[in-house]
Amino acid sequence: MEKPLKYAVFGSGSWATAIVKMLCENLDEVGWYMRSTYTKEHLIKEQHNPSYLSSVEFKIEQLKLSNDINEMADYADMLIFVIPSAFMHSELEKLTTDVSNKIIVSAVKGIIPESGLLVGEHFHDIYKIPFKNIAVIAGPCHAEEVALERLSYLTISCADANKAQEIADKLSSNYIKTKISDDVIGTEYAVMLKNIYAIAAGIAHGLGYGDNFQSVLMSNAIREMKRFIKKTHKMKRNINNSAYLGDLLVTGYSVFSRNRMFGNMIGKGYTVKSAQMEMSMIAEGYYATKSAYLINEKNKKKTRLPIIDAVYDILYQGKDPKITFKKLTDKLD
Amino acid sequence: MEKPLKYAVFGSGSWATAIVKMLCENLDEVGWYMRSTYTKEHLIKEQHNPSYLSSVEFKIEQLKLSNDINEMADYADMLIFVIPSAFMHSELEKLTTDVSNKIIVSAVKGIIPESGLLVGEHFHDIYKIPFKNIAVIAGPCHAEEVALERLSYLTISCADANKAQEIADKLSSNYIKTKISDDVIGTEYAVMLKNIYAIAAGIAHGLGYGDNFQSVLMSNAIREMKRFIKKTHKMKRNINNSAYLGDLLVTGYSVFSRNRMFGNMIGKGYTVKSAQMEMSMIAEGYYATKSAYLINEKNKKKTRLPIIDAVYDILYQGKDPKITFKKLTDKLD
Repeated sequence: MEKPLKYAVFGSGSWATAIVKMLCENLDEVGWYMRSTYTKEHLIKEQHNPSYLSSVEFKIEQLKLSNDINEMADYADMLIFVIPSAFMHSELEKLTTDVSNKIIVSAVKGIIPESGLLVGEHFHDIYKIPFKNIAVIAGPCHAEEVALERLSYLTISCADANKAQEIADKLSSNYIKTKISDDVIGTEYAVMLKNIYAIAAGIAHGLGYGDNFQSVLMSNAIREMKRFIKKTHKMKRNINNSAYLGDLLVTGYSVFSRNRMFGNMIGKGYTVKSAQMEMSMIAEGYYATKSAYLINEKNKKKTRLPIIDAVYDILYQGKDPKITFKKLTDKLD
Repeated sequence: MEKPLKYAVFGSGSWATAIVKMLCENLDEVGWYMRSTYTKEHLIKEQHNPSYLSSVEFKIEQLKLSNDINEMADYADMLIFVIPSAFMHSELEKLTTDVSNKIIVSAVKGIIPESGLLVGEHFHDIYKIPFKNIAVIAGPCHAEEVALERLSYLTISCADANKAQEIADKLSSNYIKTKISDDVIGTEYAVMLKNIYAIAAGIAHGLGYGDNFQSVLMSNAIREMKRFIKKTHKMKRNINNSAYLGDLLVTGYSVFSRNRMFGNMIGKGYTVKSAQMEMSMIAEGYYATKSAYLINEKNKKKTRLPIIDAVYDILYQGKDPKITFKKLTDKLD
């Protein structure tokens, strides 16, 4: 019998904590790297993450905790990254151990701002990981509902279906259903793009647009997402599958989404800087907007992306949200 | 110059009232038939509908009010029906005047239970109206937001694009954007099917499923709707357009939707009868569920409709919602 693969989760936010919880349903031991020594000590002492999903109780003997990213990378075969994209670059700078034989799983919800690369692409380009050893975990999934053990569905994408299934099996439980996909790039872009549309939904709400408009916005967003992903990575995919449309909806309709909240403040008249200062963390969609815009700029024949363009104009060009959205409404149907 | 067409709205609920309001933005005179003499007298005296969207003030000199369906049908060229599908049959029994030269516009959100026909089909079959003279008004549009003049988008479908555009122009204003389509049957089915999915969303919520599941349900619902409509009326359509996906979302995510509320009660343990008795009006989706189920039963090769089947089993077969939905979760992805 083959030796079971060792799993480690990198990150200690709510989504990281939720993934550790899912793995603990199936594995005797789960590696868990976190930057903060305080979080680690609190976990040992109190059996829960002090800052995120603190209602989730862990059996401490099941966890292999570490504040040393290299120790954890050495330990595991399956490295699941769940670090906010804005901190990925600085965290990975600490990574000096050889990871070329590891399987890299991204549950990062965005693009690495410094390189403009998806997490998968980043590991492929910088660490020479072959694409068959790169996987993506996509929702639709609020971490908070995993904590409550409410039924949720995940899609695990990998070019190698066996690896996707291996990861899927380890995440499945009576409250987690999984499916696998070979559309690594498409699902990773979907995870990133949805946050831009959640910002747009927030801006619209902040400006006083109602539910009728929100549904038109989401209907246009999924068509725009389809065009964007198709341009970047053409393959047969049903954009209405849960990993794309479902994930867009759970974020775009959530009043708890940081991205939607950030957009809402912008719509209500906060400047980008003041909205960012009000929030303890910068919304992933902020970076995603610039990245998506730049990716499209590089296309010889640009894709029509009216929503992304509007959010970009507001966040990066200082355009007035009210006027920009008024113009946007003429481009939607 | 051609004589301008005369419009009349049949019905006095919230959606009918909203459509009269839209028409009043563009027409000097709008015909309005309602069954209730009280509503008519109240409108004349107080300039607003006593029961629905009562915040909307009408200029009474703009309205041609009548309690006589035949008088109104004689008056108008463009007959817009906005009567709950359950009352269409009894209302149309009163219609004795010749309407074969009229243009029939359906804004009815469902199927006529007695005939199992869409409103367009009903007029075609019974009143010999050619399909080029049958049009459909589809959302996504809560009437309540029209009352508030919040930006909303409508799709007007007709086989004759000129007629669709004529109606679209009369409904457009600074808060209503319109587009036209030639998919009369598809948009009419979408309007009907969304109410079944709204019931499903309500049942799920009542049973304690969360937002993650809701997004998976909607993602499966739009794929199921696509299969259903494609089977019934095959043509090129983008199911993610606002008239299909947008309308599904505005209903499925609305906590004010009667259909969702009805489903929620069922999920919470009310019997179908007691849930119906609690609500002053029967939810359109209740009839739509049976009709959709029967349409699929008649197909030689049945379409896979797990959500509609589950709702049918609960509403018409007395199946337990909890067990039925548990089984349904295995069929979704």
